[in-house]
Amino acid sequence: MSSLLRQMMQRLSRLPGLGPRSGKRAALFLLQQRSRVLLPLIETLKQAADTIFPCDTCGYFDTQNPCLLCTDSKRNTAILCIVSHMTDVWAMEKTGQFKGRYHILGGTLSVLEGIGPKDLHITALLERLKSPLIQEVVLALPPTMEGAATSHFVVEQIQQKIKHAPSITTLACGVPVGSELDFLDDETLRSAFSRRHTL
Amino acid sequence: MSSLLRQMMQRLSRLPGLGPRSGKRAALFLLQQRSRVLLPLIETLKQAADTIFPCDTCGYFDTQNPCLLCTDSKRNTAILCIVSHMTDVWAMEKTGQFKGRYHILGGTLSVLEGIGPKDLHITALLERLKSPLIQEVVLALPPTMEGAATSHFVVEQIQQKIKHAPSITTLACGVPVGSELDFLDDETLRSAFSRRHTL
Repeated sequence: MSSLLRQMMQRLSRLPGLGPRSGKRAALFLLQQRSRVLLPLIETLKQAADTIFPCDTCGYFDTQNPCLLCTDSKRNTAILCIVSHMTDVWAMEKTGQFKGRYHILGGTLSVLEGIGPKDLHITALLERLKSPLIQEVVLALPPTMEGAATSHFVVEQIQQKIKHAPSITTLACGVPVGSELDFLDDETLRSAFSRRHTL
Repeated sequence: MSSLLRQMMQRLSRLPGLGPRSGKRAALFLLQQRSRVLLPLIETLKQAADTIFPCDTCGYFDTQNPCLLCTDSKRNTAILCIVSHMTDVWAMEKTGQFKGRYHILGGTLSVLEGIGPKDLHITALLERLKSPLIQEVVLALPPTMEGAATSHFVVEQIQQKIKHAPSITTLACGVPVGSELDFLDDETLRSAFSRRHTL
């Protein structure tokens, strides 16, 4: 096998969702579909690498800076939703429930993966929160150990460093709609029970 | 979401092994790992698109034409192994059993996928077989309906169009080493039984 082909397979296999075997298949597929798939993909990747950057304000990847969401005057500036990844922004947007602004941390604290406070966009967040316009911060981090640790850290930072701290809320944790109690993990059910409310 | 980012996700999701959701993840991963992963990937894909082509003789993707395998003088020119894909060449090479030449058809006949005789490298194969040097053709096509139909078609073509046709053999079909009879499909076990041999 030529070393260039080997390199192509190795680099493709680094993509999340692909491994050594599917990296091989992807490389052959691209070479077989040169003009229909490979050349357009190269062109798009080049354009993206040249023009898509994280928004300085919120971290959202966009071709403009500040991004589409940060410049949308129809969105409420009084409420800020903190998420770990850009995909979480899309998940929130699909609900149609939230019309405020976002702040993307870029991950969650994780000792295992070596992600510390400096790897998250915390400084930019604290800078934003100096504005008296923001009245509520919604923590929408994943309900995992890492998400909880990150929430805790963010709350601590806000309370320590922001003089007139906004109110801080978080997503409700409980039984997902359409799920079967029998298949739920204990922790979720325990949490749903302890937070039961009057009908 | 910017239209370029959407395009990037769509084009990545066309890769085999990726879908709409993992295409999104791959795009974000690439943008986050711009200099470490995205830029080297673009460079490699560009080089590959410019320099890797199928060998005119056997169909193997290589930076040289005729390819490494076709120009390797240590390989036996008397025996030709016909496979459907390049990955099958690597599988054969790993066994260390075969030191002849290969011919890659580029697929198998399939009504469902709309692959007909013209989509396979049959003409090049018949051209090669005109050489009196080739004494044996080993059919190493997959033991599926499509593989069987393709084998049948190739044999027919060789017998019709080649004056002094070489002997044609095919891989043995039977119980894979290390498998449990209980987990084998009926067809494999039936074939293994009907082809049983004296110890």
